Amino acid sequence: MVARAWRVGVASLVCVFGTALAQGADQADLTSINRIVDEGFNRSELPLTAAYLTDRIGGRLTNSPQMREAERWTQQQYRDWGLKNVRTEGFEFGRGWSIEKSSVRLLKPRVATYSAIPVAWTAPSNGAITATIVVAPMTKVADFEKWRGKLKGQIVLVTQPDTGGEPLVAPFVRLSREDITKYDTYKQPVVSMEEELEKRLERGRFEAKRDEFLAGEGALAWVRKSYREGGLLHGEGYQHRRGQSPKLPGFELAAEHYRQLARLAKTGTAPTLELISDVRYHDEDSNAYNVFADLPGRDAKAGYVMAGAHLDSWVASDGAQDNAAGSAVVMEAARILTKLGLKPKRTIRFALWNGEEQGLYGSFNYTERHLVSRPPLQDPARAALPAYATWNLRWPVTPGPDYNALAAYFNLDNGSGKIRGIYAEGNIAATPILKTWLAPFASMGADSVVATTTYGTDHVPMSAVGIPGFQFVQDPLDYGSRIHHTSIDSYDHLRMEDLKQAAVIMASMLWMSAERDQPLPKRPLPSKPLQTDPFEYEVETPSP
Amino acid sequence: MVARAWRVGVASLVCVFGTALAQGADQADLTSINRIVDEGFNRSELPLTAAYLTDRIGGRLTNSPQMREAERWTQQQYRDWGLKNVRTEGFEFGRGWSIEKSSVRLLKPRVATYSAIPVAWTAPSNGAITATIVVAPMTKVADFEKWRGKLKGQIVLVTQPDTGGEPLVAPFVRLSREDITKYDTYKQPVVSMEEELEKRLERGRFEAKRDEFLAGEGALAWVRKSYREGGLLHGEGYQHRRGQSPKLPGFELAAEHYRQLARLAKTGTAPTLELISDVRYHDEDSNAYNVFADLPGRDAKAGYVMAGAHLDSWVASDGAQDNAAGSAVVMEAARILTKLGLKPKRTIRFALWNGEEQGLYGSFNYTERHLVSRPPLQDPARAALPAYATWNLRWPVTPGPDYNALAAYFNLDNGSGKIRGIYAEGNIAATPILKTWLAPFASMGADSVVATTTYGTDHVPMSAVGIPGFQFVQDPLDYGSRIHHTSIDSYDHLRMEDLKQAAVIMASMLWMSAERDQPLPKRPLPSKPLQTDPFEYEVETPSP
Repeated sequence: MVARAWRVGVASLVCVFGTALAQGADQADLTSINRIVDEGFNRSELPLTAAYLTDRIGGRLTNSPQMREAERWTQQQYRDWGLKNVRTEGFEFGRGWSIEKSSVRLLKPRVATYSAIPVAWTAPSNGAITATIVVAPMTKVADFEKWRGKLKGQIVLVTQPDTGGEPLVAPFVRLSREDITKYDTYKQPVVSMEEELEKRLERGRFEAKRDEFLAGEGALAWVRKSYREGGLLHGEGYQHRRGQSPKLPGFELAAEHYRQLARLAKTGTAPTLELISDVRYHDEDSNAYNVFADLPGRDAKAGYVMAGAHLDSWVASDGAQDNAAGSAVVMEAARILTKLGLKPKRTIRFALWNGEEQGLYGSFNYTERHLVSRPPLQDPARAALPAYATWNLRWPVTPGPDYNALAAYFNLDNGSGKIRGIYAEGNIAATPILKTWLAPFASMGADSVVATTTYGTDHVPMSAVGIPGFQFVQDPLDYGSRIHHTSIDSYDHLRMEDLKQAAVIMASMLWMSAERDQPLPKRPLPSKPLQTDPFEYEVETPSP
Repeated sequence: MVARAWRVGVASLVCVFGTALAQGADQADLTSINRIVDEGFNRSELPLTAAYLTDRIGGRLTNSPQMREAERWTQQQYRDWGLKNVRTEGFEFGRGWSIEKSSVRLLKPRVATYSAIPVAWTAPSNGAITATIVVAPMTKVADFEKWRGKLKGQIVLVTQPDTGGEPLVAPFVRLSREDITKYDTYKQPVVSMEEELEKRLERGRFEAKRDEFLAGEGALAWVRKSYREGGLLHGEGYQHRRGQSPKLPGFELAAEHYRQLARLAKTGTAPTLELISDVRYHDEDSNAYNVFADLPGRDAKAGYVMAGAHLDSWVASDGAQDNAAGSAVVMEAARILTKLGLKPKRTIRFALWNGEEQGLYGSFNYTERHLVSRPPLQDPARAALPAYATWNLRWPVTPGPDYNALAAYFNLDNGSGKIRGIYAEGNIAATPILKTWLAPFASMGADSVVATTTYGTDHVPMSAVGIPGFQFVQDPLDYGSRIHHTSIDSYDHLRMEDLKQAAVIMASMLWMSAERDQPLPKRPLPSKPLQTDPFEYEVETPSP
């Protein structure tokens, strides 16, 4: 494999395509790629899929009624398209939550309607809360003492007002070849100490402690500042476990309105707000469900390849770039391959993950249910944390019976930008093969294979145990600048030409990997100790 | 003057400052400029003034309670600072209007809170209107027939959904010297035919006809699309005359939400909206009031110079860049000059205009009350239009008794960007003098004098009758890209360093022009015919 990889690495792309692909281990029928291109660009159903998920269903918070509808509708679509073995797999997640109606108004010193959203899983206001505000920024438990006895009957502004920035660069960008090349540098892995992880977790738990403190002090509600300017809102919250719901209503306020309150409070009597948060908990079923569908392979022993994207989203808007985009691409790839009647050697599986936004719950559940097992943590507090925060503490990792069945996994979760290449995720042995598979897409700007390891989405649980799991390089567009998790993440900010290209490439990558004689090279199963910096000192940080 | 202008034009800036200014017609005490700089940068009160106008008073729609409060408070500030002859001048404008509370929610096929604002001067909803929508774009009277009989009991979406653009350039920009140089080209004036004006006015009247049609058809309300993307809202409306108020509630909806409704309507049963518009008319006084304050001159016969900015705004936010910025600069210039105890030869007058946003009502009123007279139009329909739309039809222009008293007028109304120079507004004879006055501010980037004529704000009525009336060149910042009239035109998007610089330069220009021996050269009083293109054919446009 090494020699072959080297030979491909020095060949020109034409040579690669002409030799390694055609003569090598990949016997895929290349005509199928042209058929995929034809179906994907001439008869795409992707816009209708994306519109259904965003316009008609809307924001899809895990276990909300909207997400239940998305779980139901995506399965129906798969069945209508002729996919097989359409099913869900449930896992314990917690409560659903949804917004029926909400508003924040300034009542004194004047009347104004503010831009605001209830924070996910915070309590309803049960009618209108009308009270004065107090600006009481808190970032750690030690800050509580400063405000003790001063918050009763008030609405507490918990964030530092700070000052805003200005938009000095274009929000909407595409990558140049040079930009992409920068990603192609292998970085040696170094794992930091457990203590760092613990501190991060402690910061997460702080939200619950603050809610507890504020409720104990008799505060009526809390308000935080949006972390973006320009009136954009997000509303992320994480207290979704049963029995851990926040006691108080909590709001995120547009940065401009938050700072206005802070200025008014500083120069006159405290402003009065009216808060309404008609939010609902949904406790019928605390399981969240991943959705799967298969295009069965012709060789039952050859295992499977898989595409995945998370179907859940936040609810400030309709979860379009994050991640109806990726979900619609995965579904469209399923539709194309099924419509064309292709019979791959390996089964092709299509995964729509759930609970991604709160910590990759769905993909970790799949990984630890089907691929590997890890012992649980003994400390109950740690054991209650999401797997994404603790997997690096649970040793040894033992391969499950299906560990070798999964030959490749492809994830899409970086907005609506077209595919420009693929991250090898440290699996450098796979790079020459990935290059041959992407070679036909050079004229679509998508033929780069870069060494970078990426984090933060659903390939991580699989890639972390050695399985060839990949994310694609995508044009950033305005994902990071203004869309990710915001109140304008709606259908209008999807670029259909980009997503059609992504669906064609996703379908092709699945086809090539499903047809390949050998599975893609795995990386070794991780074993402790992972490389740490032997000279690292713990960084002193203030205790919470 | 020509020879002198040429000499200055080729001299270096140092020469200009050293010769023309010190030896020339300007006997101003240059030490005063350093005192202005000291007071303006070391003891500025501009941030407090701007915060009061935006945070505490908020959006200042002409004749709204907020604008009444702004009229009151600005006079009080002037008196507290020691300005003289603080007063208002009223003129007939129409009704006030304000928003107490409003919301738009999608109820079917799902529940969502939409970003929306009632359009100024539209009718209240009297509780909630819940109805299905119909997408019925109308741009001219002829479009009405298409929809007759189809709108009863529904909420009508009157704009084409179109598609949005993407933000491909940086929203926040400053001017390079090269950018500014492009403005310095004299364009010969050519007046277009009257018919063009009539067509523009007809388009304006279309809004009233559409409201009439929709009400006659039994529609319940109308909704238009925001003309900016990214959730930004505006809400401009123009039916402020008594007896001309719209019959129906009208809303502007975020572009993203508007298009969502259009897509949902196209692919399923008509969506249901819930509209609430608790808006109020204010009929106590139909006069709007300009606010004036004077720093009296030592020579009663020397006339006066004037600075101005409009105090009124739209109400989607707090009217910060448009135009609390300019108002605060004018007020700060008044404060600085008064605080320093300067005694100019000419009186310096500070004007805060009203009704600018609906058509330069305040500054036209001042011009036709104090400076010139024009005969009224005979046609009552034309006579009812704002002066800014008809002044070019009313001949002859006769100078009033105070015509020669106003030696110079300086306007600020292009957002929060610092001053980079001044538009000569076609008064090229004044350019060498303006250059000498700006020369001290070269190191603040503000010494350009450019020939361009600008429109759309309150120097126009004065400049149009030959009075030396000027706008400043300002750094654009994000005024045009996302702030102008929008829901985020709030204090956070003011740049205080820029505005302090503008106040210092405004004060200095007033001082220099008030001290100059001779008034600035006027342009001739306009007389008919103005230059038209003798070969122009009327462009065929569809009748409304």
